Amino acid sequence: MLGTHLKTYLQSDDQFIVIAGPCSVESEAQMTELLNAPGFSKVVRGGLFKMRTNPDSFQGMREKGVELIEKLRQERDFDFITEISDPRQIELLDPVTSIYQVGTRNMYNYELLKELSTLGKPVMIKRGFSANIKEWLGAAEYLSPLPEDKIMLCERGIRAFEPLLRNHLDLGTVIWLKENTNFKVIVDPSHAMGDAKYVRRASLASIAAGADGILVETHPEPAKALSDAHQALNLDELASLQAELKSLGEVLGKQIV
Amino acid sequence: MLGTHLKTYLQSDDQFIVIAGPCSVESEAQMTELLNAPGFSKVVRGGLFKMRTNPDSFQGMREKGVELIEKLRQERDFDFITEISDPRQIELLDPVTSIYQVGTRNMYNYELLKELSTLGKPVMIKRGFSANIKEWLGAAEYLSPLPEDKIMLCERGIRAFEPLLRNHLDLGTVIWLKENTNFKVIVDPSHAMGDAKYVRRASLASIAAGADGILVETHPEPAKALSDAHQALNLDELASLQAELKSLGEVLGKQIV
Amino acid sequence: MLGTHLKTYLQSDDQFIVIAGPCSVESEAQMTELLNAPGFSKVVRGGLFKMRTNPDSFQGMREKGVELIEKLRQERDFDFITEISDPRQIELLDPVTSIYQVGTRNMYNYELLKELSTLGKPVMIKRGFSANIKEWLGAAEYLSPLPEDKIMLCERGIRAFEPLLRNHLDLGTVIWLKENTNFKVIVDPSHAMGDAKYVRRASLASIAAGADGILVETHPEPAKALSDAHQALNLDELASLQAELKSLGEVLGKQIV
Amino acid sequence: MLGTHLKTYLQSDDQFIVIAGPCSVESEAQMTELLNAPGFSKVVRGGLFKMRTNPDSFQGMREKGVELIEKLRQERDFDFITEISDPRQIELLDPVTSIYQVGTRNMYNYELLKELSTLGKPVMIKRGFSANIKEWLGAAEYLSPLPEDKIMLCERGIRAFEPLLRNHLDLGTVIWLKENTNFKVIVDPSHAMGDAKYVRRASLASIAAGADGILVETHPEPAKALSDAHQALNLDELASLQAELKSLGEVLGKQIV
Repeated sequence: MLGTHLKTYLQSDDQFIVIAGPCSVESEAQMTELLNAPGFSKVVRGGLFKMRTNPDSFQGMREKGVELIEKLRQERDFDFITEISDPRQIELLDPVTSIYQVGTRNMYNYELLKELSTLGKPVMIKRGFSANIKEWLGAAEYLSPLPEDKIMLCERGIRAFEPLLRNHLDLGTVIWLKENTNFKVIVDPSHAMGDAKYVRRASLASIAAGADGILVETHPEPAKALSDAHQALNLDELASLQAELKSLGEVLGKQIV
Repeated sequence: MLGTHLKTYLQSDDQFIVIAGPCSVESEAQMTELLNAPGFSKVVRGGLFKMRTNPDSFQGMREKGVELIEKLRQERDFDFITEISDPRQIELLDPVTSIYQVGTRNMYNYELLKELSTLGKPVMIKRGFSANIKEWLGAAEYLSPLPEDKIMLCERGIRAFEPLLRNHLDLGTVIWLKENTNFKVIVDPSHAMGDAKYVRRASLASIAAGADGILVETHPEPAKALSDAHQALNLDELASLQAELKSLGEVLGKQIV
Repeated sequence: MLGTHLKTYLQSDDQFIVIAGPCSVESEAQMTELLNAPGFSKVVRGGLFKMRTNPDSFQGMREKGVELIEKLRQERDFDFITEISDPRQIELLDPVTSIYQVGTRNMYNYELLKELSTLGKPVMIKRGFSANIKEWLGAAEYLSPLPEDKIMLCERGIRAFEPLLRNHLDLGTVIWLKENTNFKVIVDPSHAMGDAKYVRRASLASIAAGADGILVETHPEPAKALSDAHQALNLDELASLQAELKSLGEVLGKQIV
Repeated sequence: MLGTHLKTYLQSDDQFIVIAGPCSVESEAQMTELLNAPGFSKVVRGGLFKMRTNPDSFQGMREKGVELIEKLRQERDFDFITEISDPRQIELLDPVTSIYQVGTRNMYNYELLKELSTLGKPVMIKRGFSANIKEWLGAAEYLSPLPEDKIMLCERGIRAFEPLLRNHLDLGTVIWLKENTNFKVIVDPSHAMGDAKYVRRASLASIAAGADGILVETHPEPAKALSDAHQALNLDELASLQAELKSLGEVLGKQIV
């Protein structure tokens, strides 16, 4: 079930979406504080099953998180996007999920993509660490039973050689994709830059580059986040970013949603 | 069931393995010609479920290939290594598989790795396209119920910027891994170089760098291969490479198996 | 001798410069057509000594080009920026040059940088093909007798793995530099993208990312350019880009000059 | 003036050269200890004018170093290879230099290359940080008045994404160059690996890959070296490496010189 906002967005060419939410869903208090914030996004991101390089890192709230989101969606009107890393999670995730996010580590997981293509919901494919355009579009083809307007590509920074940045934000490829394909192209400035203080500028550059939205890590108290604490915006920073995007969007012919 | 050769190899420090076989298992004639060749490897590679960037490319013999390998293993003494890309393939593959190969595209597929870690058979993890060492060892940790001597790492070239080569053969990382870990380190010179004519030199460099073996694409008639035709050795080239490795191995204190 | 426009720009924090001109100065007709265009940049780029990967490619008008620029600067009010690749070119170039451009291939040419640091004119250092931030700032230190406001850094795309783009436009590094240094940061969207049709979007993204200007290849008839023909804007495209930058600049607090 | 050893090497196809010496020439005591070591290389490397990312790092003995090498060459029979970073150093360096080394930072410094091409002495071009093959061969073309057998290419590791290694040793490109060009191809395992403990393996892999020699940093007391202390071999390690290369060379048909 997709909310009206999301349906309209997927059909539109002139809307820019701000998908906000925490890296990991951590607690009811955390999620409620976000959802209650005035003007908070109607499409909310949040990790339930986390993929971590180190198997001893926090792996997400999993089943308990699903129950929490279910409860919150009954009380409030929002769409939910979350990462899926195994087809066997579908049964659990499907009731609460509006958009399936395939993470960077699974861009080439064609078995997963084929499975998701049959569910009829939008799928957002994050780019592999150093996936080239042909490979990324190849992954999108594995979704092809889905109509084009339900396939979203998310640029999240590419692997490169710079020790002072987590990744290289690759807006050149965003520009290429908008010129040569019909997919929605979203930017994840949080992972691309790896530091909250660079997220604002990366987001403004993304809308100017022609992206269709951002996926931005937001936490009521970033310093206390269980994962990626250093790269989440707080609620004030998010509101201020939304306002700036709105002003830019007026010049660029994009409505912020 | 692991053959004696393979068991001995896994316990040994001074053996260098030549794992040969086609990119894809294609037919009984193809496999028989390889297996009948004098001195052919006792550990044979061959793709049954192929992962392809383009969903319309040949995706492997799948079930029929499993039956073929089953038949061939009943008639002959060899171990078989093949790529698995989904836990749901285990039931089918397990009877014919000695070593599970996790492909480049699935190095970060932790759900798959966790599943394989419970089966007790050796697992070979190919390096992600631009995986760094920490990520690669992180993937190996997801196998950790397996003893260290059943975890194999396979370098297959990293993504880089050179249009004249398919990948960059990264022997520096092989050297690092042999100095700092206890895992078997295998090199895939076929994918690393992308052209049969460079495979010999890449293999010689691998043994000199300290690698524990190579995984080399071999086809009775490379030009007719259904996938990666340009990078497979023919049987004469393989035999000649084995002889050269044997001579080098004598100097380096490595026995070729 | 720096023109008033340029002097003001170097002192200012809220101006965004559009440096336009051809890859190579080719003829009086070519330069006159550009300079006569209404609203054309007052800081003009143009190569006189070209560095080419292939020694048989066109190497620039050299001495004759210097004479031409000298004549044009007597008749018109503009500043000129050109690439220098050898200290022995200083004598020839100095009378016509307002800003010395050190090209990508010479970012690490410390002898050249030391020499330029003594001339008192602004120097713009283009980033090496895959220079990291520390190396780039190290190059800027070799200019250090120059005051900070005469050192300009130019991002021009980094080497990476994508065959469909000439380089990777690296706005993440632009954002880092604006946050952490006081240098002017310019973007060269023409080289970064390698195709005129992507230059507009790359330029808009640059101003939004916080860059202080762009260096954009412009030619009265791009198809006839002797070098980089595919990446130059024509005069209409330049005028239209300037207008869009002006609108965006009003929102971002930047005046286009 | 080239020594007999060096002349023979340049004409030969089956010799593998070990060029040893310090990163920087530091003192008469240092150089004498190296040159007196039994079996030390007859072609000695040593930096006189050092290029450093940070202008405050040790920049080499410069003029005093030239005098020292001059004195040492009068007393002993060896060839000397040193880096040149500016044509204006030619006058000073020429009397003591047998091979001019163009450093990684100057691979694209075509003015320097053109100048060196006229001197008639061998020139060794180190590969730029992420130079591709076409660019590297383009640089070699700028030397083209020199005969092919006086042009040497030196692979020294490419820039990539691995924080645990200084560079990526790129033997794939060495293999490509030996198959497709006639130039001597040398490997610098010291810079490629960035740590003395990996130099032995990288050197063995280089000869097996088909390289024509190595350029290996050697210091009588590596811990006291003024630059790159962590990557130099001591004299025992060098002797032991030479012995291993000799054994491998016998199998590979290469004589170590």
